[in-house]
Amino acid sequence: MNYQHYKKSYFHIPNFKRTWPEKEITHAPVWVSVDLRDGNQALLSPMTLAEKVEFFKCLVDVGFKEIEVGFPAASDTEYSFVRYLIDNDLIPDDVSIQVLTQSRPHIIKRTVEAIAGAKNVIVHLYNSTSFLQREVVFGNTRQETIQLALEGFQQLKELLKDNPNHIRYEYSPESFTCTEMDFAIEICNAVIDELKPGPNHKLIINLPSTIEVSTPNIYADQIEYVSERLNRRSSIILSVHAHNDRGTGVASSELALLAGAQRVEGTLFGNGERTGNADLVVIALNLMSVGIDPKLELSDIDRLIHIYKKFNKLPIHPRHPYVGEFAYTAFSGSHQDAIRKSMDYAQRTNAEFWENPYITIDPKDINRSYEPIMINSQSGKGGIGYVLETKFGYMLPKALLQDFTSAIKSLSDRKHAVLEPDEIYEAFRQEYINRSDNIELLEYHIHAIGSESEITAKMKIYGETKELKAVGNGPLDALCLAIRPEINHKFEIATYSEHALDGKSSSRAVTYIALSDNDGTVTWGAGVHPNINTSSLYALVSALNRM
Amino acid sequence: MNYQHYKKSYFHIPNFKRTWPEKEITHAPVWVSVDLRDGNQALLSPMTLAEKVEFFKCLVDVGFKEIEVGFPAASDTEYSFVRYLIDNDLIPDDVSIQVLTQSRPHIIKRTVEAIAGAKNVIVHLYNSTSFLQREVVFGNTRQETIQLALEGFQQLKELLKDNPNHIRYEYSPESFTCTEMDFAIEICNAVIDELKPGPNHKLIINLPSTIEVSTPNIYADQIEYVSERLNRRSSIILSVHAHNDRGTGVASSELALLAGAQRVEGTLFGNGERTGNADLVVIALNLMSVGIDPKLELSDIDRLIHIYKKFNKLPIHPRHPYVGEFAYTAFSGSHQDAIRKSMDYAQRTNAEFWENPYITIDPKDINRSYEPIMINSQSGKGGIGYVLETKFGYMLPKALLQDFTSAIKSLSDRKHAVLEPDEIYEAFRQEYINRSDNIELLEYHIHAIGSESEITAKMKIYGETKELKAVGNGPLDALCLAIRPEINHKFEIATYSEHALDGKSSSRAVTYIALSDNDGTVTWGAGVHPNINTSSLYALVSALNRM
Repeated sequence: MNYQHYKKSYFHIPNFKRTWPEKEITHAPVWVSVDLRDGNQALLSPMTLAEKVEFFKCLVDVGFKEIEVGFPAASDTEYSFVRYLIDNDLIPDDVSIQVLTQSRPHIIKRTVEAIAGAKNVIVHLYNSTSFLQREVVFGNTRQETIQLALEGFQQLKELLKDNPNHIRYEYSPESFTCTEMDFAIEICNAVIDELKPGPNHKLIINLPSTIEVSTPNIYADQIEYVSERLNRRSSIILSVHAHNDRGTGVASSELALLAGAQRVEGTLFGNGERTGNADLVVIALNLMSVGIDPKLELSDIDRLIHIYKKFNKLPIHPRHPYVGEFAYTAFSGSHQDAIRKSMDYAQRTNAEFWENPYITIDPKDINRSYEPIMINSQSGKGGIGYVLETKFGYMLPKALLQDFTSAIKSLSDRKHAVLEPDEIYEAFRQEYINRSDNIELLEYHIHAIGSESEITAKMKIYGETKELKAVGNGPLDALCLAIRPEINHKFEIATYSEHALDGKSSSRAVTYIALSDNDGTVTWGAGVHPNINTSSLYALVSALNRM
Repeated sequence: MNYQHYKKSYFHIPNFKRTWPEKEITHAPVWVSVDLRDGNQALLSPMTLAEKVEFFKCLVDVGFKEIEVGFPAASDTEYSFVRYLIDNDLIPDDVSIQVLTQSRPHIIKRTVEAIAGAKNVIVHLYNSTSFLQREVVFGNTRQETIQLALEGFQQLKELLKDNPNHIRYEYSPESFTCTEMDFAIEICNAVIDELKPGPNHKLIINLPSTIEVSTPNIYADQIEYVSERLNRRSSIILSVHAHNDRGTGVASSELALLAGAQRVEGTLFGNGERTGNADLVVIALNLMSVGIDPKLELSDIDRLIHIYKKFNKLPIHPRHPYVGEFAYTAFSGSHQDAIRKSMDYAQRTNAEFWENPYITIDPKDINRSYEPIMINSQSGKGGIGYVLETKFGYMLPKALLQDFTSAIKSLSDRKHAVLEPDEIYEAFRQEYINRSDNIELLEYHIHAIGSESEITAKMKIYGETKELKAVGNGPLDALCLAIRPEINHKFEIATYSEHALDGKSSSRAVTYIALSDNDGTVTWGAGVHPNINTSSLYALVSALNRM
């Protein structure tokens, strides 16, 4: 690999005594959706006005109070959308729209035109501050770069001085993560000194990881380092905007919250330029999973997924945290077993808190379920038992489940594919229930004799129809006594259990019977019938057929 | 949201003085692929033996020296695969296979049978150590849990004492992240004391985040805390195995490396149970991007993607770091501009290191390219210029590029979709090149008169064919002089440039001409022809037609 092509550098801040690793996140940050700007700008097919309007409404419903709606001076579509929202009164009073602008006079002018009449606006001005951007892309010195930011805000203040609405400012030193920290502090403080924010008119300072260039702890260091050195800190809302070039956009945002960030910009499911922005759904659900109110309403997660897919025309990966198709599956037998036992334990003990060894949140809390448990050759009896119980009502004795699991595994091994619940049930039914291959119970009558039962049974045994009769201490015992002389095999009932299948008095019953023969081999059978006598006799006959 | 359903807890270790945030990763860890075990076990359709063999060969080619090949006692498929690798001598001498086993006598016995004859084996024994797993799932006390691990290793030592090959042991306290740290240390040290590793027979202690339950810094704390408290630390190889339930599997692994981990288990592109394992490709390329030899050969990334998709039957998300379809795209005009300028700068200055404000690695280093630059309504002249230059050879003057960009934007705005390079070129061609709508140059001859040129031109002007003649200080000037009296418009040539299109002497030339009229309005035209005189005259005529 051509690793010599890259500078050995992590942007570590020398001798910095950080405190963030001691901290814990205790409450949700201010959330900012940039789906309609950073997200939309990175789509093969940017949204139409109508699509943006629907997306905006969805973001409002989810509970976003700050929504970046575009870069209105960048194109007519963006401008028209901002005007449409304002002119049609679509922005709730408690929601601020945010518009992005570069520090260029004609762009600022057009941006100010775009927001005329909006009640709550955040005007977000950025310029690029890293060495590479300053010197190579823009050909500016540090001082010229500061001047560019200040002139932008001076022009904004002038143009907006008579605006009667609630205007706030946000400043982003773009390419912050690659900027020398002393210069990042210098330019932010220059902007702060220019705008003189106070407790009632706070300024948002947004420190983006425009590209991720280090492990996320370094980003946290950068955030804490700058946070401590900002003027008028109590009048600043410190914001972060992480990208995902190193696959750590969520971690970067979370560690930045420990480091003093109060506000997080990102998108639904991490859409955005290149490898995406920080995934706000994941960060919010991470908070929920440790008992913190995420302050976003994500319980109807499927609506968000629908909106995301429809308008971004992007997929959700099957392994996406919390929402991917496989997020709550467990194929491994030991996992399935542990999940099931923990769920049973929680139910039995009426547990206050969700705790599960393999699933971090209760899928029900986002309107999902643990149904899609998957059975393949890696699965064990926990999962198979779960499917048979929750889907079909069969609560198999543990030894029978073990017996059946071996059969299912070789079936799945042969198929090299996952088994559907119906296939599992069908395999169980064919193998165990009401078998009558060689021995069949055609008709029977039970007659009570004192505390004993006399059975008269018409049976077909290896093709020959016979009338049998015997007395036992119950119908099952009686049938055993009647059959024993007819077949060439010793057997005893080793164990026996039954339960109703459908939970009503009129419902069918299932009986599970294990027979043991001379050398201790155990054979299982099951019988299903609305009559509990019949189900037990069928179970016996079924087991005899399998013997 | 039902956040009250979750315990408020991050597993913070009280009063722990960590050192890992001071550290930097300086070299690649030992990589362990668990694709064939943890990855394969989580597939809808687990791999066949033939597929596993091909996957294994690919992992060997990539440079993995430790490969977990399965849980051989779990199913016949897994057992047969391990035997197949050994019996067919498919394991290179410098590669260790790793097999997973629970601490149960019949499973250990079968595992030992599975590895007979293999030269280098890591036997990986695990048992579950969290409170929930110990007490609820297994019904064991702490002491019984320790005993379980010890008995497993005692049995392994006994069964393998005459094995002539190189056997190493790995122990995992499963559900480590949810385990009380004092107990995690106690059980690991009990195993260490049992196995008595030395400098020449090291023991692997693997501390998995079986589920992610905290921000990744807490995992790093746990790793450093335990690492410091292990007996015979210098004879221990500390390993991590992170899952991705909170979307921070990569970050957890990276911070764990800072915290003392020496070995990373994971999979290609993050396949694995539920939301996946740590993505080893991303972690390795993160290392490369900061100048560290990743010790994995990933330059033929498309082969890995092919193997991953074919055998896992899972997609790569378009925004997947480094390898997703959009990882190197930039739709935004300012991004495109900055990317292009930085690439030009690097070429001009013969830069040793890759540095780019929006792309963390040179796509060429993993056999990709920055070709898929996408043009939509958000794009600017940087991207459009890049496409016309790299795909079609046209190096447009900046002002012409600006002129054309407006046209392209409204085209993309109307289409609401990305424009393909061919569409961009076609739009440029139709608009600027060799236009002859109202004015057409049918034929011409040039005759040198001293240092001046006389032109004789046959032209069609608004439907009427005319023979024109004039003398100027060159052919272009002569044609201007000839045409001026014929048309109802004053014009001057404002600027003029030309270049070869195909880089050969026989190649076509393109000429760009800007005409200015009385009120200063500028109109561009371009001409293309193998003859440089003809291309310049065509450019003039083209501009006149657009005027």
